[in-house]
Amino acid sequence: MKGIAYYKEGEHVHDFLLIKSVTRGTASNGKPFLTIILQDKTGDIESKLWGSTSEDEKNFVIGAIVLAEGDITTFRGRNQFKIKNIRLKEDQEVINKADLVMAAPLSANALDEKVTQYLFEIKNPVIQRLTRALLKKHHQAFFEYPAAVSIHHNFLSGLAYHVCCMLDMAKEVVRHYPEVNSDLLYAGILLHDMGKLKELSGVTATSYTLAGNLLGHISIMIDEIGESARELGIADREEVLLLQHMILSHHENPEWGSPKPPLFKEAEILHILDDMDAKINIMTRAIRKTRPGEFSERIFAMDNRSLYRPTFDLQEEQEIQDLSQGTEKKQN
Amino acid sequence: MKGIAYYKEGEHVHDFLLIKSVTRGTASNGKPFLTIILQDKTGDIESKLWGSTSEDEKNFVIGAIVLAEGDITTFRGRNQFKIKNIRLKEDQEVINKADLVMAAPLSANALDEKVTQYLFEIKNPVIQRLTRALLKKHHQAFFEYPAAVSIHHNFLSGLAYHVCCMLDMAKEVVRHYPEVNSDLLYAGILLHDMGKLKELSGVTATSYTLAGNLLGHISIMIDEIGESARELGIADREEVLLLQHMILSHHENPEWGSPKPPLFKEAEILHILDDMDAKINIMTRAIRKTRPGEFSERIFAMDNRSLYRPTFDLQEEQEIQDLSQGTEKKQN
Amino acid sequence: MKGIAYYKEGEHVHDFLLIKSVTRGTASNGKPFLTIILQDKTGDIESKLWGSTSEDEKNFVIGAIVLAEGDITTFRGRNQFKIKNIRLKEDQEVINKADLVMAAPLSANALDEKVTQYLFEIKNPVIQRLTRALLKKHHQAFFEYPAAVSIHHNFLSGLAYHVCCMLDMAKEVVRHYPEVNSDLLYAGILLHDMGKLKELSGVTATSYTLAGNLLGHISIMIDEIGESARELGIADREEVLLLQHMILSHHENPEWGSPKPPLFKEAEILHILDDMDAKINIMTRAIRKTRPGEFSERIFAMDNRSLYRPTFDLQEEQEIQDLSQGTEKKQN
Amino acid sequence: MKGIAYYKEGEHVHDFLLIKSVTRGTASNGKPFLTIILQDKTGDIESKLWGSTSEDEKNFVIGAIVLAEGDITTFRGRNQFKIKNIRLKEDQEVINKADLVMAAPLSANALDEKVTQYLFEIKNPVIQRLTRALLKKHHQAFFEYPAAVSIHHNFLSGLAYHVCCMLDMAKEVVRHYPEVNSDLLYAGILLHDMGKLKELSGVTATSYTLAGNLLGHISIMIDEIGESARELGIADREEVLLLQHMILSHHENPEWGSPKPPLFKEAEILHILDDMDAKINIMTRAIRKTRPGEFSERIFAMDNRSLYRPTFDLQEEQEIQDLSQGTEKKQN
Amino acid sequence: MKGIAYYKEGEHVHDFLLIKSVTRGTASNGKPFLTIILQDKTGDIESKLWGSTSEDEKNFVIGAIVLAEGDITTFRGRNQFKIKNIRLKEDQEVINKADLVMAAPLSANALDEKVTQYLFEIKNPVIQRLTRALLKKHHQAFFEYPAAVSIHHNFLSGLAYHVCCMLDMAKEVVRHYPEVNSDLLYAGILLHDMGKLKELSGVTATSYTLAGNLLGHISIMIDEIGESARELGIADREEVLLLQHMILSHHENPEWGSPKPPLFKEAEILHILDDMDAKINIMTRAIRKTRPGEFSERIFAMDNRSLYRPTFDLQEEQEIQDLSQGTEKKQN
Amino acid sequence: MKGIAYYKEGEHVHDFLLIKSVTRGTASNGKPFLTIILQDKTGDIESKLWGSTSEDEKNFVIGAIVLAEGDITTFRGRNQFKIKNIRLKEDQEVINKADLVMAAPLSANALDEKVTQYLFEIKNPVIQRLTRALLKKHHQAFFEYPAAVSIHHNFLSGLAYHVCCMLDMAKEVVRHYPEVNSDLLYAGILLHDMGKLKELSGVTATSYTLAGNLLGHISIMIDEIGESARELGIADREEVLLLQHMILSHHENPEWGSPKPPLFKEAEILHILDDMDAKINIMTRAIRKTRPGEFSERIFAMDNRSLYRPTFDLQEEQEIQDLSQGTEKKQN
Repeated sequence: MKGIAYYKEGEHVHDFLLIKSVTRGTASNGKPFLTIILQDKTGDIESKLWGSTSEDEKNFVIGAIVLAEGDITTFRGRNQFKIKNIRLKEDQEVINKADLVMAAPLSANALDEKVTQYLFEIKNPVIQRLTRALLKKHHQAFFEYPAAVSIHHNFLSGLAYHVCCMLDMAKEVVRHYPEVNSDLLYAGILLHDMGKLKELSGVTATSYTLAGNLLGHISIMIDEIGESARELGIADREEVLLLQHMILSHHENPEWGSPKPPLFKEAEILHILDDMDAKINIMTRAIRKTRPGEFSERIFAMDNRSLYRPTFDLQEEQEIQDLSQGTEKKQN
Repeated sequence: MKGIAYYKEGEHVHDFLLIKSVTRGTASNGKPFLTIILQDKTGDIESKLWGSTSEDEKNFVIGAIVLAEGDITTFRGRNQFKIKNIRLKEDQEVINKADLVMAAPLSANALDEKVTQYLFEIKNPVIQRLTRALLKKHHQAFFEYPAAVSIHHNFLSGLAYHVCCMLDMAKEVVRHYPEVNSDLLYAGILLHDMGKLKELSGVTATSYTLAGNLLGHISIMIDEIGESARELGIADREEVLLLQHMILSHHENPEWGSPKPPLFKEAEILHILDDMDAKINIMTRAIRKTRPGEFSERIFAMDNRSLYRPTFDLQEEQEIQDLSQGTEKKQN
Repeated sequence: MKGIAYYKEGEHVHDFLLIKSVTRGTASNGKPFLTIILQDKTGDIESKLWGSTSEDEKNFVIGAIVLAEGDITTFRGRNQFKIKNIRLKEDQEVINKADLVMAAPLSANALDEKVTQYLFEIKNPVIQRLTRALLKKHHQAFFEYPAAVSIHHNFLSGLAYHVCCMLDMAKEVVRHYPEVNSDLLYAGILLHDMGKLKELSGVTATSYTLAGNLLGHISIMIDEIGESARELGIADREEVLLLQHMILSHHENPEWGSPKPPLFKEAEILHILDDMDAKINIMTRAIRKTRPGEFSERIFAMDNRSLYRPTFDLQEEQEIQDLSQGTEKKQN
Repeated sequence: MKGIAYYKEGEHVHDFLLIKSVTRGTASNGKPFLTIILQDKTGDIESKLWGSTSEDEKNFVIGAIVLAEGDITTFRGRNQFKIKNIRLKEDQEVINKADLVMAAPLSANALDEKVTQYLFEIKNPVIQRLTRALLKKHHQAFFEYPAAVSIHHNFLSGLAYHVCCMLDMAKEVVRHYPEVNSDLLYAGILLHDMGKLKELSGVTATSYTLAGNLLGHISIMIDEIGESARELGIADREEVLLLQHMILSHHENPEWGSPKPPLFKEAEILHILDDMDAKINIMTRAIRKTRPGEFSERIFAMDNRSLYRPTFDLQEEQEIQDLSQGTEKKQN
Repeated sequence: MKGIAYYKEGEHVHDFLLIKSVTRGTASNGKPFLTIILQDKTGDIESKLWGSTSEDEKNFVIGAIVLAEGDITTFRGRNQFKIKNIRLKEDQEVINKADLVMAAPLSANALDEKVTQYLFEIKNPVIQRLTRALLKKHHQAFFEYPAAVSIHHNFLSGLAYHVCCMLDMAKEVVRHYPEVNSDLLYAGILLHDMGKLKELSGVTATSYTLAGNLLGHISIMIDEIGESARELGIADREEVLLLQHMILSHHENPEWGSPKPPLFKEAEILHILDDMDAKINIMTRAIRKTRPGEFSERIFAMDNRSLYRPTFDLQEEQEIQDLSQGTEKKQN
Repeated sequence: MKGIAYYKEGEHVHDFLLIKSVTRGTASNGKPFLTIILQDKTGDIESKLWGSTSEDEKNFVIGAIVLAEGDITTFRGRNQFKIKNIRLKEDQEVINKADLVMAAPLSANALDEKVTQYLFEIKNPVIQRLTRALLKKHHQAFFEYPAAVSIHHNFLSGLAYHVCCMLDMAKEVVRHYPEVNSDLLYAGILLHDMGKLKELSGVTATSYTLAGNLLGHISIMIDEIGESARELGIADREEVLLLQHMILSHHENPEWGSPKPPLFKEAEILHILDDMDAKINIMTRAIRKTRPGEFSERIFAMDNRSLYRPTFDLQEEQEIQDLSQGTEKKQN
């Protein structure tokens, strides 16, 4: 299987795919149609099912696995999948579900081990206990959730993977700049996006909860830290206040959601590492889909820039796919 | 006693005053001096004590009551008090301390009654219980605190007075626009600035606490509401989320400290009433100190505008003082 | 009749409606079609008349009343009316034209009485005469015009209704804050949007006049006040200048059309009340069309926010319609 | 006489000068002092009169001519005049008052002739009559006023000189771009700043009037054009509306005071020529005071930039003075 | 031939036209179509070729000349060309290619003469040699290139025509303001957009080069001036630095591409003249296509404004066409 | 020697110090004084020499070493040095000049070795040769210059030290994100601030050159890279363009001096690492001067924030000094 992200215009597709989202519309001729986003582990693609029946609407729902056949066309520079045939996977057809879900290059277990290791390195007992308690409370979701609905690390375990990349970079920062307090920095990284577990509705077909819409993950987390600190009897410790401030300020800027800017150095560094890891993830994904010597499609989260891929960058498409499927694992 | 706010350049002062703040400096001739802000219930004034001794530094501290004599001069359009003699009040000298402290036109008891009355009008039991619990928890401070360090309602009981003015206006809004939910609006008003009880250090010589600097009154209050709701066993009710959102959004705008804009109509109206009451308070105080036909000094909290006082506005200085000391009480 | 604003997707419509606007287009198959906006007193809806004939173009013009039959579909979250049959109302068919026009909850007469009453309360003779003269000059249009083309109070007598709501709130402001000059405030409210009578083309099918485009209602009104003051021989009075300033500054901000910010307190309060009444009107209309527990469609005039309707808000659709048709009248 | 603008640090001054402004202050030793701005036709300079007596305050008022002696010092890069002796000019001392007032390089008569000539070139009778009427109404002030309080062309006849420079450039624009309507452009230039005659208090010791503060010269002029057009019976002509719009929009941008941007090409060109002439005037004056190879003092009206004077620019100080006093006259 | 820019909705076209651009798309019925922009010397128009064949894709490429027949329709206020028949021009069909290309009103030769003349007027030998060398290096392209991809002067020789209009206006500026250094100003004008010869891909079907995308014409030109100055052995002269600064700053503002604002007066004037000539060109073209008494389509480069064409402006369509084809030549 | 940065208010100083800058002023009593900034390797302090003689002005010039005695006072929260005695160091007095100059924690030699090592790791021959050539051309200055006049790394070898810290972090980035091109990233880091060698006047008493003021280090470097590439015969290689773009875009944002934002991933990462290293340097220096439990003075380069130093941060002043003098060296 080639992977839905790697087909080019004019190529023929005949693959098992997972339905990521479905919307019903009415065409200008008055007939209903379905806009279906189909995905496998390499990415997703939009398709239209014209003249859909009520049977179709009942079958093709979020999470269903289908066998789809058709051709790749393009519209405004994006691939579309022109479906000729589509049907539900039948029970006797055996597929590996992991092939249909985008996931972090590291498994939930590997990420869990890494997190545990950094937790051990936190020496300050208040920071240690608080961080440990919160990780325990949200253990399962923490290692499953994506880091965002659609922007960066939007894949299985994306949140924990994002946290682990940041922890590794933080370790280097601490090594180079010995006056940085590693306890605060590691704990801040571990907790900074934990509010997303309540802001987002779940692991698949992710949307915003009412709390997500009305409060946002930052305010949710301020409240969570306060609650845990009270449960542990450490609510009056300065460390708790500092961690709450790190969460509050980690978007740096009022317009990006932080009512206070970072007011001590570890809070500022948390913001920089968060921003750097998110941007490198976004840029790398965009460049993988771009041919050397060309500009990528516009990237909303990077101020709508198109990024250039140098002509002397990796040349072989095959390499790119290998990389996205395996190489990242070798980094450790 | 004329009131320190009403002296004009060239007039002679000989009054008991309260020290609001003291800063030590070194003059260009190398000698120390004290910058002392002196206040009575009508306002405050800056003075310099040149060539101050270590004795002076020990005596003239925040909160001390002094007998000061000297002349009024002006500097950049603001009055200054050129001290000729200053000494501590002696024990046998009897003064009424209420004459030295700016206070709301209504007493703490009167404000308490008004608040209790509005609390009764809240019908929704979740909103009622939560608001009542929080008012009870902070009862004394709530009726003593100023509403801000230096901007609006910065006087004794300023916070509760600001809340009561808003409640009265809210009652009219509800009467004119029957689709507005009065339970949410009244509760939002009662709670919106309660976080200031932890953001500010106290009733006099008010400054920001560490929690105030690192979290701010909005985030503090999100956490407080969450805590009370859990104690009352109503943490999963939508009403709690809505009240948290009202607090979160009541500054309207990220740059003014609200990470989310108001997302339901009562939240928006809370913001408008808060803004209106603060601005009318600020403008009224500035105009009281301005002569008809002239522009006021620049008002920082009103985008640095100078406001004009029409020539046909109240003419008699005496009236103005009467008004500021008594008339507001008649409004009820 | 149910009211065009209250149909849901899939429902069938067979009603008399008024044509609010018509635009001709050419479909991708090269055939002409008409985009017709149809209205009744509850709101309006877009429809397409595919393959329109020149006969259709002659019949279906702005202001025509038609009998239309078809189904409700949705496109991007907005209702559309898929017309199956449409024809002009025939002469013998009797309908109540008031059912097809959105109007203020109070009649023009009731609004006129209210305005007269407030006019009586203005004590300052210069302000009184000037305001009275301008109201007299524009009497009929003032009580018929909408307050805006499409944003707030865009219905028959919308302008006068908006003014009357503001006057009622102003009365409360004056009662609570006795230093506010009610003469200036009432007159400012009465005149603030009068320039719209020359900025907008008329009561129905409202568009901008050339003077509206090139000068705007604020500058038009500066000139009108000057003219009336000269006619009354009071052009050199400070009151005239103050009223001109109130008009000039009532949008608060250069980007919103006011070259000067409010420079005395009544001008500032005029702005706040104008803003509050417009926003409550906009929010209330959006929420009426939203189900409890859901977010409204995006509201352009509220920074493109979607507003939430709490689940414990009014539950019955019937109630909502009752309210929009009748209840507001009871407010007095 | 060298001219007060051309002295350097350390040089000795002994000249008759005119008092441009006086402010009273109190020094840190408690003694009064006067800050006096002294001027002659080449510019002005700040001086301090320490330990001033009440006699001094009575003598040294705005408009008085004094004989002052002292040295030039510098403070933060600006020259100051350290007065040693100062006294009022005595009656028998004869000086030429024109030497003490900054004035345009062209006389009021020469400017009047130029304006008359351009008025003749306006062919459209509505535009001609309206412009002629307004020039007649304000004839004397128009040829005497400065163009601004302190920014550009702040000298005698500065307004008319600014208008004439713009008219000459406009003539070239019309010659190069024949589709530009010269009637509108010339009339727009003649009227664009006429509102300043009511915005500013007068020719010397210029400050803002109440109308200037509350309405500004743009709104004042909208009203004036409307009044004149009604007097001439041409109030309903499109030309009047267009001229009002040109005045309204000539600052281009809401933040700079124009509620509407220019909406036809002559309005846009009016803005560009106004801006260009003001900037060249500001820059030329700043550069005259700067030595080749150095940067000027910061120029507030040019976004606080310091401008560089190239080393190969005019080298001789004498030349510069000649230029400022005479050469500009040769331009015609 | 009427000129493609002057057809109205409903009119029939049967003309030879040049293909300016072609994009392939897939219609909602799954069939391919071509979006072809066709031009002649009066302007361009969009057309759709539905159900295009691979033969069509091979024939209808950028630069091809075709004979097209069909009708004018409108979409969102813009004309579209509904093609009925289209074929390549046959060899025996003789047309004048100049009729199909938009060009400056002056020929390349006439522009070259004008440039040479201004070059002679530059007295400073460093500025003269540097400007002459750069003009020589890029001679042919300089007189052929458009000034922009789509904004202003986007026609054959548009760059040189823009430069010549600016030079003529500059001559007037120097005449009116004798302290302006004409050597710097003329050289700055001649060089200011020369970097576009490397930023843009060529004379027809113009797009951005990689250097254009990554560096932009301003930075490209800094490097070019440095290179030429080193070749001429004058790299250490202040004049070189000043010319580099003029290029660097001629967009005035960081957001518009200039990292430094103009820091001497000739740099500022260069910016103003550049801006003025571009805007007059843009406005004139928009107004030519607008009927008197109407507003033009929105102009992106003028902050999206619609400009008004006064009712008393040129009335005859014929005149407008004459003007655009011939009259501009008469300006010299 | 304690180090001038570590004295507290009231302490007595008697040390050899280096004059960093001198400005002459005139006191309000008319007498001249000198404002002298004195430094040693720990920092600098402002002092006033009242009633200075012409002898003083001749002796106390930038770069002179003096023996100064006096007391530490404070003004607006900053230390000042109240000089009682000051004289030039005499020839026979032996001091270690390194004690008077702030320097990077690594020697120029150590930095050179590190740079050489990274240069070896660049594999792409075009990038290698270009970077090597530019480093060779500026070898000495590159290892001596500060990184900025007053913001970050403003000490001896500050530029090279800043580059080396960034290179070490870049190595980690490349290790964690294998798709990042290390050749581009290392070369971009090595060259990004090299233009400062021409923007700044020198190693001590650093100010801006004319090229610095008119072009800035970014544009200077674009030209330098172009020149070197032409000398090496590689001017047409894409790598050169990419490196020029990295320099051009490394401030990210037009307002911060980059006319283009980063348009490929290594350019973006260069910006992030530059920003992170500068900020950590700035924050660390500010926190070293702040006591645990207090806020630092406002930091202009961090949006004027005051940073908090947690109470549980390093407690011993001695430790801090040790750290600033030695520990950083241990990091490698």
